[in-house]
Amino acid sequence: MPELPDRKTAFFEWFSAVLEQAGITDLRYPVKGLNVWPPYGFLARRLLDRALREAVEPLGYQEVSFPTLIPETELAKESEHIKGFESQVYWVTHGGTTPLDVRLCLRPTSETAMYPIFSLWIRSHRDLPLRVYQVVNVFRYETKTTRPLLRVREIHFFEGHTVQTDETAADRQVSDDLRSFARIAQEAALPYLLCRRPDWDKFPGAHYSIAFDVPFAEGRTLQVGTVHHYRDNFSRPYGISFELEDGSRAFAHQTTYGLSERLLGAILGGHGDDRGLVFPPPLAPVQVVVIPIPGKEGREGVEAYAGALVEELQRAGIRSKVDGGPDRPGAKFFTWEARGVPLRLEVGQREVSSGNLSWTDRLGGRGKVPRTDLVPGVSQALEQFHRRLHLRAQETFAAQLSVAQRMEELTPPGHVYLVGWCGKEDCGHRIEERVQGGLLGTLEGELPKVLEGRPPSPCVACGDARARWAAAGRPL
Amino acid sequence: MPELPDRKTAFFEWFSAVLEQAGITDLRYPVKGLNVWPPYGFLARRLLDRALREAVEPLGYQEVSFPTLIPETELAKESEHIKGFESQVYWVTHGGTTPLDVRLCLRPTSETAMYPIFSLWIRSHRDLPLRVYQVVNVFRYETKTTRPLLRVREIHFFEGHTVQTDETAADRQVSDDLRSFARIAQEAALPYLLCRRPDWDKFPGAHYSIAFDVPFAEGRTLQVGTVHHYRDNFSRPYGISFELEDGSRAFAHQTTYGLSERLLGAILGGHGDDRGLVFPPPLAPVQVVVIPIPGKEGREGVEAYAGALVEELQRAGIRSKVDGGPDRPGAKFFTWEARGVPLRLEVGQREVSSGNLSWTDRLGGRGKVPRTDLVPGVSQALEQFHRRLHLRAQETFAAQLSVAQRMEELTPPGHVYLVGWCGKEDCGHRIEERVQGGLLGTLEGELPKVLEGRPPSPCVACGDARARWAAAGRPL
Repeated sequence: MPELPDRKTAFFEWFSAVLEQAGITDLRYPVKGLNVWPPYGFLARRLLDRALREAVEPLGYQEVSFPTLIPETELAKESEHIKGFESQVYWVTHGGTTPLDVRLCLRPTSETAMYPIFSLWIRSHRDLPLRVYQVVNVFRYETKTTRPLLRVREIHFFEGHTVQTDETAADRQVSDDLRSFARIAQEAALPYLLCRRPDWDKFPGAHYSIAFDVPFAEGRTLQVGTVHHYRDNFSRPYGISFELEDGSRAFAHQTTYGLSERLLGAILGGHGDDRGLVFPPPLAPVQVVVIPIPGKEGREGVEAYAGALVEELQRAGIRSKVDGGPDRPGAKFFTWEARGVPLRLEVGQREVSSGNLSWTDRLGGRGKVPRTDLVPGVSQALEQFHRRLHLRAQETFAAQLSVAQRMEELTPPGHVYLVGWCGKEDCGHRIEERVQGGLLGTLEGELPKVLEGRPPSPCVACGDARARWAAAGRPL
Repeated sequence: MPELPDRKTAFFEWFSAVLEQAGITDLRYPVKGLNVWPPYGFLARRLLDRALREAVEPLGYQEVSFPTLIPETELAKESEHIKGFESQVYWVTHGGTTPLDVRLCLRPTSETAMYPIFSLWIRSHRDLPLRVYQVVNVFRYETKTTRPLLRVREIHFFEGHTVQTDETAADRQVSDDLRSFARIAQEAALPYLLCRRPDWDKFPGAHYSIAFDVPFAEGRTLQVGTVHHYRDNFSRPYGISFELEDGSRAFAHQTTYGLSERLLGAILGGHGDDRGLVFPPPLAPVQVVVIPIPGKEGREGVEAYAGALVEELQRAGIRSKVDGGPDRPGAKFFTWEARGVPLRLEVGQREVSSGNLSWTDRLGGRGKVPRTDLVPGVSQALEQFHRRLHLRAQETFAAQLSVAQRMEELTPPGHVYLVGWCGKEDCGHRIEERVQGGLLGTLEGELPKVLEGRPPSPCVACGDARARWAAAGRPL
């Protein structure tokens, strides 16, 4: 295999190369930004989708599916929303050779597909809350350079939509959604900031937007998902109202929760290294690979032994695989490391005879487990690996954060700056100019360690003492 | 609830009404033929998708995902294929306000999206066979009247694609695929004919096509799926070739296997009755509903008891639900019958005291099961119900088949005619004219009971004795 580009100095080249090498994606489709998911990549996506479903279904979300095509007339009903999207949607203009009466866009997100139907589903307070989600592909006509998983034109997307009786109920839903993301991030071993976006950068049509931001590569930050509170901004134009217990009518309040394949990009781009991908065990398509090492006694004994191990692991629900192919063991180690498999067991004659198995994890950790203790031993090794991976990611994350008290400190790029901000738009724009990027917004939820116990600094731009902690960086 | 249209005299009105009433689909989306899948319908679809995955993965198929958008230049590479599809695809012509250099179509099927990439994946005989599938939505600009699940413009679709070394290997794959469908049809309690389509009706680009046809409503037949053998018709224009062991090169042979949401339409349209839907248990979103019947002792006792039953059933993997809502029991019976739930348990004070539970199945069967024997008793009732449903469907199916020896017998419409056919196109077209429909093709696999042990009749059109059994009807 060809040598990988250097992750530090050429991140995006490295990223494309490791994704292709591991079989996560194939970038050779004849339209830029439309990528192929080969079997290994698809399995990774399927596991992440499953984790999302398991995180939101306990909150009462039910899965649905709405059409891919949205008529221009519906897209246009909420004025900010259409302004935000009309320049970046794909337009279907013809069916066969017939021009369509009303143009159809490929959904960039599904508010305008769902809400006309929600207005029919919801009659009374007894129909609320409504919580639905779909896992679909959405489309954006990207004009910037496309990047696999990070900026594509057909985007694999989780979108949750809820309808609530009032603003407070919608606020509660936002909190629930944020908590459910914490569970996903834990499985993904992924640290993140919760940033309440400034008004000029919220979702088109939203009352407020809270984003999950990750300090990423080349001094960039990566937004991997968002939760939005819409108040009644959509329910009014789309007529989503209901009868209260006292017989009066009110417009509903709405929230959404969106996560895209970027989340997988953040996981793989964040944990990967010079040897390729590193999967956190809960999301690894293969958690354990068993490599038979044939010795002078031949291959059959070790292969049968390896097969029995994998069978036992699989019965216990551990995704595992024996690599019985013709390559030399060294080449197999290389391949499965590149694919990010958390744990490798090597089975040679010595292991067969001693009944003592050696494992190596993807971060270079090593250990032994008695054959008789296979499942608990391997489970424990996977858990340890998961913890170490998370810890390493937290350290990398912390090193990218920089607390700044003065405007002069907002340089060089390559950091996410934590600053006091008074909330004024003018100060926000001055900060953005200074970091040559964006004000990600005020921090919500648990603060990063470096800020724990520290009262907010005065506004870094104007010195106003009534400031809150905010983050600023260069979004990808 | 409003009374349902009559299934016998107004099938399609009945069908739309029962699907909407049960929450399988919502037809009120503002574009005709693009339907919404509410939670209950989505769950039915998810279960059927799971059954498909479980049927094909043991054959070595791996799941993948290819782009929704196909450039016109790729669609056009195989000449028959483009002729078959160009008049019925949706065309994307603009990204934002920018006209695209090359128009993109929404995939009507994915041969032309996948095969350029297959040509890169396949180098050597060691890469073969390749077996992949995807479960995606495809798009057809339908100009005929749309029907929910049966003829829509955005179609939920399973498509399997394989690449084989030669024609024989591809034939074997076709046989495997046909067998995997038998398993799905068994779960769906669905009888069907295997028809090898006449040449003038095969898939555009195929060497041969075998369809799964079901005699359906209003004298129509319904094609619920197909398996195609492409020979090297696609591998040549798309350059899918490989190196053999002796170092020479050959073009691959290919097959595909397609099933659409029509399959769910056939299941629900075929089994449903005047009271609504009837789900076969393996595909039922809710297999057992438990209805508490409050008596003079109040509701709490029976509700707690019902809750405990459902918990035990769910632990055993039986999809079940207690309906603790405010409606009267009769209204609940009505609702869950309409939704097609196979089995209902009623829990009143008598059941609680006696520890003896009564069940009613969706076909009106009744029985008792001791509380202590809940899971095996309910499982057995579900299995019995499944067998009876299948038997009933087979009888209805058999009654729609009619063996005809002379052209004059190919009337009235309302039947699927089984005839001898010599294979000549001219005779085929005469049969088609006579039935005012299509020659579905020669029968493959196991023959319907009525033909068992009968040698084929001479050709019904020309009397040639060298004929095979064929079916003719009026495809929807």
